Amino acid sequence: MIKKLLIANRGEIAVRIIRACRELEIETVAVFSEADREALHVQLADEAYCIGPTASKDSYLNITNILSVAKLTACDAIHPGYGFLAENADFAELCKECNIIFVGPSSDAINKMGTKDVARETMRAANVPIVPGSKGIIKDEKDAVSLAEEIGYPVILKATAGGGGKGIRVAKNEQELIKGLQITQQEAATAFGNPGVYIEKYIEDFRHVEIQVLADSHGNVIHLGERDCTIQRRLQKLVEETPSPALSEEVREQMGSAAVKAAQAVNYTGAGTIEFIFDYREQKFYFMEMNTRIQVEHPVTEMVTGIDLIKEQIYAASGKQLSVSQEEVTFSGWAIECRINAENPYKNFMPSAGRIEMYLPPGGLGVRVDSAVYPGYMIPPYYDSMIAKLITYGATRDEAIARMKRALNEFVIEGVSTTIPFHLKLLSHDVFTGGEFNTKFLELHPLMDA
Amino acid sequence: MIKKLLIANRGEIAVRIIRACRELEIETVAVFSEADREALHVQLADEAYCIGPTASKDSYLNITNILSVAKLTACDAIHPGYGFLAENADFAELCKECNIIFVGPSSDAINKMGTKDVARETMRAANVPIVPGSKGIIKDEKDAVSLAEEIGYPVILKATAGGGGKGIRVAKNEQELIKGLQITQQEAATAFGNPGVYIEKYIEDFRHVEIQVLADSHGNVIHLGERDCTIQRRLQKLVEETPSPALSEEVREQMGSAAVKAAQAVNYTGAGTIEFIFDYREQKFYFMEMNTRIQVEHPVTEMVTGIDLIKEQIYAASGKQLSVSQEEVTFSGWAIECRINAENPYKNFMPSAGRIEMYLPPGGLGVRVDSAVYPGYMIPPYYDSMIAKLITYGATRDEAIARMKRALNEFVIEGVSTTIPFHLKLLSHDVFTGGEFNTKFLELHPLMDA
Repeated sequence: MIKKLLIANRGEIAVRIIRACRELEIETVAVFSEADREALHVQLADEAYCIGPTASKDSYLNITNILSVAKLTACDAIHPGYGFLAENADFAELCKECNIIFVGPSSDAINKMGTKDVARETMRAANVPIVPGSKGIIKDEKDAVSLAEEIGYPVILKATAGGGGKGIRVAKNEQELIKGLQITQQEAATAFGNPGVYIEKYIEDFRHVEIQVLADSHGNVIHLGERDCTIQRRLQKLVEETPSPALSEEVREQMGSAAVKAAQAVNYTGAGTIEFIFDYREQKFYFMEMNTRIQVEHPVTEMVTGIDLIKEQIYAASGKQLSVSQEEVTFSGWAIECRINAENPYKNFMPSAGRIEMYLPPGGLGVRVDSAVYPGYMIPPYYDSMIAKLITYGATRDEAIARMKRALNEFVIEGVSTTIPFHLKLLSHDVFTGGEFNTKFLELHPLMDA
Repeated sequence: MIKKLLIANRGEIAVRIIRACRELEIETVAVFSEADREALHVQLADEAYCIGPTASKDSYLNITNILSVAKLTACDAIHPGYGFLAENADFAELCKECNIIFVGPSSDAINKMGTKDVARETMRAANVPIVPGSKGIIKDEKDAVSLAEEIGYPVILKATAGGGGKGIRVAKNEQELIKGLQITQQEAATAFGNPGVYIEKYIEDFRHVEIQVLADSHGNVIHLGERDCTIQRRLQKLVEETPSPALSEEVREQMGSAAVKAAQAVNYTGAGTIEFIFDYREQKFYFMEMNTRIQVEHPVTEMVTGIDLIKEQIYAASGKQLSVSQEEVTFSGWAIECRINAENPYKNFMPSAGRIEMYLPPGGLGVRVDSAVYPGYMIPPYYDSMIAKLITYGATRDEAIARMKRALNEFVIEGVSTTIPFHLKLLSHDVFTGGEFNTKFLELHPLMDA
């Protein structure tokens, strides 16, 4: 079992990992940039070291400094959290070379899933449904045109090295396709150093549904059900819930099995998420991508299964078996997460850094808060604007929503603007409570305009 | 369904009730003494009214003022919480006469369970196990002596109108019995206006295990399993957990059935608790008393069943059916509650009122905080010293304990002394973690002396 773990991250996920380690009696080492000297994860960890200046590239992405701290403090493992180095295959490989356990999958699995056309072909081979489109990279204009005609417009061009909504372009006809191919290839070459582009059928009307998987090094691969992350703003998830209000029991099982096959196809270990495009009208789903790390929204799964995902990551990384088998996984109730960002929802979600003057998180039954802020904390303007995750649990979706509204109303954060007013409007919106919506919900219903 | 509810209480339980009402869209009216003007329950309720000076008898026990506020604000119900008026049958009756729903059982049920020898005989008639002892009140000295010889020494003398550890005396032989009977009768006449005393076999080596029951006015009576409240200091519960580490599955079922019979015997409605003396060596249990109200420790039951007990009280009081049947109740995992008091555990638990300078409750998976304090809050010295309930949930007892230790270590309360250091010592004690102990644990292991 891991004895001492360095957390190569900051904010709520660093605190989350420290909490799991405390409960497992694993020693913790925090690292921080010069801007994060007063951060909560620094105060909570057993030891903490500055790894560089404010800019992420000089601190939280500074592989040399992070590995040096790990070695000097005799850590036997590094947990990368999400973002920063979490899906950096080179970092995972370097950890291995330094004889340090990387709490995550192998660099090979990260690479296979991180390169989009490779992931697509791997899924095709594993019989995981993929969106109709090209086999591998587009060779030339002629190849693109004949393929688009075959699958039908609109199509979407995607840079194989892209991700997070970058390197993507929709084409409604041949003219747009020819022009778009050139531009996307050029942009991809510049931005990602890889001009490779592939084509998929463009599905407009869908929900984002993903499956949490867990795998150990003993061949056990299980799934923990879905999360519905359809409420997004500019491809950023804002609210996540489980179960999905849109999934039939039959499709839920199919999607779970497909996710397990996807993880097996890359010999996955640890916690990962298979994201699917869910065509809810047809109850069909297609592989979107795999996130080879713990996700922001993992708590909703923990609430309905009772399984601590960070602990499972640590068990798997330590070479132990998962603590549960697929048959032992049970689901009860409903969980929702709202991401509370330090942004002004009345001013186009403009970031709002500054000092938190007053802070009182909500409490009581079915309320969970994952945060790294405290009264008097100065939110630095340099990193992610998410300052808290508020998760509620209820016997039903209605109860979870009612509890979330109650908790949002109770949440006291003074000194900075937050997205709490946005969430309150969303949770009172008929279409949201009705449960029938797609990823364009916020385009169709710009809640903060009224 | 109740539309507007007055909460005749303060502190965390007032906040707890307001939270349930918010989720049910019931309007709330808070009442407060002059010392509680800045209290959180006052800030959270829809309306709030001062009902008198600081002393409880002039405010939270001021029936006239409370009923006046309820009438003037058009409340259709009053929730008494615990303590204060919660088990006052006259108050329950007065509410009824004023056409206001009392969220609790009938005054008849309160009376039957509140008078100890009546409760004992009611349980005897209902075939609920009771401690061997007298049938009703002791007539005279001769009656006492012959009965004590029959059941064997030591015996315990109990004032029928007593409770909470008052009006009780142990006798190890005939001499002590004769002397004790006189004194107890005299004291009971003075203290409770009722000299009635009865005798029971004195069981020294036992655990305190209680069963949560729920009943509606449609004849449904169910139980939600047990709570083990064996860790006590001077008859005050400090730590509660569910399930009990000492109960066999067979006895668990027997105790649940006995509790349902006990509630049925007094036509109980709402939430109540049957407390049992549990002779864990023999795996036998005896009726101790019924608490005809919600209890401080109710959250541990909510954590393992997912059922909101305050909501069920409101459903029952509204004439609705319980939201679950006995067959639908499921139990999963383990929950523990630590009562955090503003007391100095290093100075014989001396109360420590004052201003809370810094306050940051713990968060994350499996952690629940029920509290009514906030940064800058001035704890008044006039009421109960409990300032927060920290509840943790885990898949196993070990996980719940590890999580509790983690959460206690995270909990920041500056400005007053708290019992957090006591709980940390308790949770690390081998005998506690081993799970084998009785109500004398703290006498045998005075944790804070070292």
